[in-house]
Amino acid sequence: MAPKPADPTQTQARKPLLAVLDGELREPPPMWMMRQAGRYLPEYRQLRQDKGSFLDLVYDTEAAAEVTLQPLKRFPQLDAAILFSDILIVPFAIGQNLTFVTGEGPRLTPPLIAGGLDDLTPYLARLEPVHETARKVKAALEPSKTLIGFAGSPWTVATYMVAGEGSRDQAEARRLAYSDPGKFSELITRIESVTLDFLSAQVDAGIEALQLFDSWAGNLSPAQFERWVIAPTARLVAALRERHPGVPVIGFPKGAGGKLAAYARETGVSAIGLDETVDPLWAAQELPAGLPIQGNLDPLALVAGGEALEGAVERILDALAGRPHIFNLGHGILPDTPIAHVEQLIALVKGAK
Amino acid sequence: MAPKPADPTQTQARKPLLAVLDGELREPPPMWMMRQAGRYLPEYRQLRQDKGSFLDLVYDTEAAAEVTLQPLKRFPQLDAAILFSDILIVPFAIGQNLTFVTGEGPRLTPPLIAGGLDDLTPYLARLEPVHETARKVKAALEPSKTLIGFAGSPWTVATYMVAGEGSRDQAEARRLAYSDPGKFSELITRIESVTLDFLSAQVDAGIEALQLFDSWAGNLSPAQFERWVIAPTARLVAALRERHPGVPVIGFPKGAGGKLAAYARETGVSAIGLDETVDPLWAAQELPAGLPIQGNLDPLALVAGGEALEGAVERILDALAGRPHIFNLGHGILPDTPIAHVEQLIALVKGAK
Repeated sequence: MAPKPADPTQTQARKPLLAVLDGELREPPPMWMMRQAGRYLPEYRQLRQDKGSFLDLVYDTEAAAEVTLQPLKRFPQLDAAILFSDILIVPFAIGQNLTFVTGEGPRLTPPLIAGGLDDLTPYLARLEPVHETARKVKAALEPSKTLIGFAGSPWTVATYMVAGEGSRDQAEARRLAYSDPGKFSELITRIESVTLDFLSAQVDAGIEALQLFDSWAGNLSPAQFERWVIAPTARLVAALRERHPGVPVIGFPKGAGGKLAAYARETGVSAIGLDETVDPLWAAQELPAGLPIQGNLDPLALVAGGEALEGAVERILDALAGRPHIFNLGHGILPDTPIAHVEQLIALVKGAK
Repeated sequence: MAPKPADPTQTQARKPLLAVLDGELREPPPMWMMRQAGRYLPEYRQLRQDKGSFLDLVYDTEAAAEVTLQPLKRFPQLDAAILFSDILIVPFAIGQNLTFVTGEGPRLTPPLIAGGLDDLTPYLARLEPVHETARKVKAALEPSKTLIGFAGSPWTVATYMVAGEGSRDQAEARRLAYSDPGKFSELITRIESVTLDFLSAQVDAGIEALQLFDSWAGNLSPAQFERWVIAPTARLVAALRERHPGVPVIGFPKGAGGKLAAYARETGVSAIGLDETVDPLWAAQELPAGLPIQGNLDPLALVAGGEALEGAVERILDALAGRPHIFNLGHGILPDTPIAHVEQLIALVKGAK
């Protein structure tokens, strides 16, 4: 598809993020930041202190809606809110117990390395509060802003479900995928099915665009990447498109590197998110013409600020100038990011012609 | 450069691995395995038990030579021995203290995050035993086998020196590179200089080919990758070529993904190693014509064995059939790899037509 010029009769009416996801060129590009609702914001830290654990906050729909809206209140030029939730809500609903251990990250018990899906009792109601949060955010959101929902991709969710925690190189899941592809395939299919209903219900609750986070797509061999990343994502995207034809799906296969072009071609995603290691100039050449690209500032350049940030932003804007482009980070914003640097970033992106 | 057909008058005389590194096509391809001298071999585990710590073994030149030769004794079809040593010998010589904590990996003290290079007292004699090992191996090596030496690339060595240990995403070094590029640049230059002399002395001791391990090249943004991976590697390769014009240098920028082509073009390496996540078909199309490629079997496919291994090997051999190709893993062999699977692999590669 070729990029569409902005339709002057529609330009004002249409939400900038949705316009770009539909293939329009916008300058300046719409922008949001992965993990924009989070620990770098003093107002978030305050609320966390009052409300308890991360999971308590996710399940307090009033508070979760407030957290979702916090970055837009502070930075009114951001173009989207992303639901405050976590990709591990899906395994929680599939029946693993979920806790977040401070300083150590999430724990899912029992890990599937030790048992099977049959040992788990599904508890799908654990997904519902997320939809309630979506409804609350939507009701409060300015009309020009887009509400983004999300889930983890089946592969990435499976890596946590198998190991029971985050792991350095996803060795447990990768091993299981080789040693028992039948069992692994059942797991992927189960995640796929719950994720489809979860995302579909998000759309019913007012979500306008979806992102699939595949944070651990990077460590797979090409054949395993085809089987466990591309194929399940393609099925999920096709099913979502059938249920909700107008709702775009952004794929974010972190670490996919040279396999990004195959991912873009074969999954059918509406747009592709680049992590910060990808050269946007390379992506502009290698990815299908007209496909919207999201990304990809190094979160450490944002921590650094100043000239390092200026240079990094400029390179991205220049490289993607001819493309439908959503400005974002290449990875979640870091907790020690100074607010002033976020302000500098927004000025750089939104001030640009 | 176009691949050279094998010169029939030279074919028998020339070492297969060196011939391919010089751009010749060989079928079957020469092969070796990263970490081939190591924990999957019972004879290695036995020697480790007798000799003590990993570092004790590296510094016992008699034992290190024996370990280097062990895989070739067991698998006579392997085409190369790689020196038994470690990339952290260089920081040890620059003046950090080096220990290997069982189950936790290496520790370098003091970490440079806390201090500067000026706090370290260089102790370059710590490199010499490696050269003695090289001489001993060379004297015992069959004439058809190639002796490979190696070092870490400046960026990867720097990540350990800064953090004082391995780190999940090299955050400490990446942060320092942004916050104090002057200090970081000094560190890189220092590593470069010691590494140049170290590799040069390896060649003087009988090493015939060199590999630069850039295990942590994967997490950098394109601009940082240019500055801290490509530029120092290019300088190192140029300096080595000037001192030792006939000695090939294999670059192994693990995780470089879509930036592999830029790395191949700009560093001047003689050959490029692919990690297991790279699609060899993609690499065959994207990398400069005629450039020898090394790789890239998923070490987990080797642990799995059987049909998974067969399929994975076939895909690599097919994809790289028209290229100078050295068969290798995409990453070090895993300790739980069954010996029988290594035998299966060698039969698959060396039995192939």
